[in-house]
Amino acid sequence: MKEDQDPQLPSFDFKSFMVDKVNAVNQALDSAVPLRDPVKIHEAMRYSLLAGGKRVRPVLCLAACDLVGGKESMVMPAACALEMIHTMSLVHDDLPCMDNDDLRRGKPTNHKVYGEDIAVLAGDALLAFSFEHIAVSTVGVTPDRIVRAIGELAKSIGAEGLAAGQVVDITSEGLTNVGLDHLEFIHVHKTAPLLEAAAVLGAILGGGHDEDVEKLRKFARNIGLLFQVVDDILDVTKSSKELGKTAGKDLVADKVTYPKLMGINKSKEFAEKLKSDALELLQGFDPEKSTPLIALANYIAYRQN
Amino acid sequence: MKEDQDPQLPSFDFKSFMVDKVNAVNQALDSAVPLRDPVKIHEAMRYSLLAGGKRVRPVLCLAACDLVGGKESMVMPAACALEMIHTMSLVHDDLPCMDNDDLRRGKPTNHKVYGEDIAVLAGDALLAFSFEHIAVSTVGVTPDRIVRAIGELAKSIGAEGLAAGQVVDITSEGLTNVGLDHLEFIHVHKTAPLLEAAAVLGAILGGGHDEDVEKLRKFARNIGLLFQVVDDILDVTKSSKELGKTAGKDLVADKVTYPKLMGINKSKEFAEKLKSDALELLQGFDPEKSTPLIALANYIAYRQN
Repeated sequence: MKEDQDPQLPSFDFKSFMVDKVNAVNQALDSAVPLRDPVKIHEAMRYSLLAGGKRVRPVLCLAACDLVGGKESMVMPAACALEMIHTMSLVHDDLPCMDNDDLRRGKPTNHKVYGEDIAVLAGDALLAFSFEHIAVSTVGVTPDRIVRAIGELAKSIGAEGLAAGQVVDITSEGLTNVGLDHLEFIHVHKTAPLLEAAAVLGAILGGGHDEDVEKLRKFARNIGLLFQVVDDILDVTKSSKELGKTAGKDLVADKVTYPKLMGINKSKEFAEKLKSDALELLQGFDPEKSTPLIALANYIAYRQN
Repeated sequence: MKEDQDPQLPSFDFKSFMVDKVNAVNQALDSAVPLRDPVKIHEAMRYSLLAGGKRVRPVLCLAACDLVGGKESMVMPAACALEMIHTMSLVHDDLPCMDNDDLRRGKPTNHKVYGEDIAVLAGDALLAFSFEHIAVSTVGVTPDRIVRAIGELAKSIGAEGLAAGQVVDITSEGLTNVGLDHLEFIHVHKTAPLLEAAAVLGAILGGGHDEDVEKLRKFARNIGLLFQVVDDILDVTKSSKELGKTAGKDLVADKVTYPKLMGINKSKEFAEKLKSDALELLQGFDPEKSTPLIALANYIAYRQN
């Protein structure tokens, strides 16, 4: 993780910060979805939810909450909800009728272990539970902010968010005349919405002013697109073993990607530009509290899997 | 619909009541999910959402709201949300990896028209949008009641609700030693949760007291189980054409049903008992305002498809 160390931030130990936050999130997820009756669906939900993802969305949510002066307890249920939704989208995307993937986070995909029917239902249950968890378990936040947060989160998933990007992605496979605008639409809708929701929910539930919420929204949109550009680059430059998932699948599926449209080097330059635009949006906030978000942007830009 | 006329309620025109409410719900659903970009997913969502269901859940929600003295505008977004979730569960249940059904409400199922991938995503988008719609479009209700309603609704869908019933149903197919308790678990979780949520959301958002909310919860649990017992009876006594969906599929799938466990006649007696228990719970409310709920229970008990 040597690239995660920003030269301007010699004193901030990003690795320790991430380990602490990821542990806290994993513990909260483990308690939020205990193994109970009916066992099979809870097992399937927990299998994918606790499979050791990078937890970028919950950590971004926690950091945004901290930035606007909120406490971790105000936003932990929302942080967990974001990871539940992210997991749902992976479980459904991996289905044979979608990307037909056998490997995810270095393990067999959910439907490979539990069957397609249970995988569909486990995804649905994770999606529904994410809203229940925010509505029932959020403490120390006024109900109007909880309602606002739920509205933002829901919008990030549906036909204007994740699902929109996925549909346009599916209907674009094999198309030859896809341009950058179209690609950006797919990526802005496929990856950015949940990262945007993460930052926005952190700011809303943490008690932030509207201007802070909107600054964090723009920050997240930038790193959301950055995340996907880096994902595209990794898909063509890394092996399946290094990624913990099937590499080169975008090429096999004849999907349009940044490296395909602008080449690897221009894609890397574009990633750099997105990162510096994101960091500019953090100016004006308490420098100490914005450090984790700066480090997170660097981590997304320079991650190796 | 002659059976819908309760001899004790000669003056109430249930058919006109239903037509009025169903029209209002259909209009609200049509506006809530307009056809917009990306067109394909919105088309798929609208195809199943506007396919002319019985709208029992939204009508129950509106009637419960009216019973506790609330206005229709307070609860219409929630009523629409219930139908979106019901539609999502039908679209996912019909998938080849689940019930593999080609016909629903007399039309080809969603995946037959749009493909399995789009059907999965359209279901996910409907589920997510249902929460967005309540959070964003509910007016005249305090935020604490909206949060409570969202918590109740979410709980009715996930691993303690619809999805739980579906999973236990799937894992029970072909089992020979399934008893009434087990069957009731499946049905209470597969059908009753959304009917319960419909009544409870109507009462919460309509401004009802906690005792009223709990009475309506019990009423809905009874008619939820009633609904499924009648469904089981119809599956063995009616043709596909009469039902508008594939008949006899429970027998083909070797599913455990009430007629199979206790015979047709005892199943009909059980349905009658559930109905009268439900009606008892409405005593103590304004008789005029409880009339639609009484008629609804009769309709569910005596429906022919």
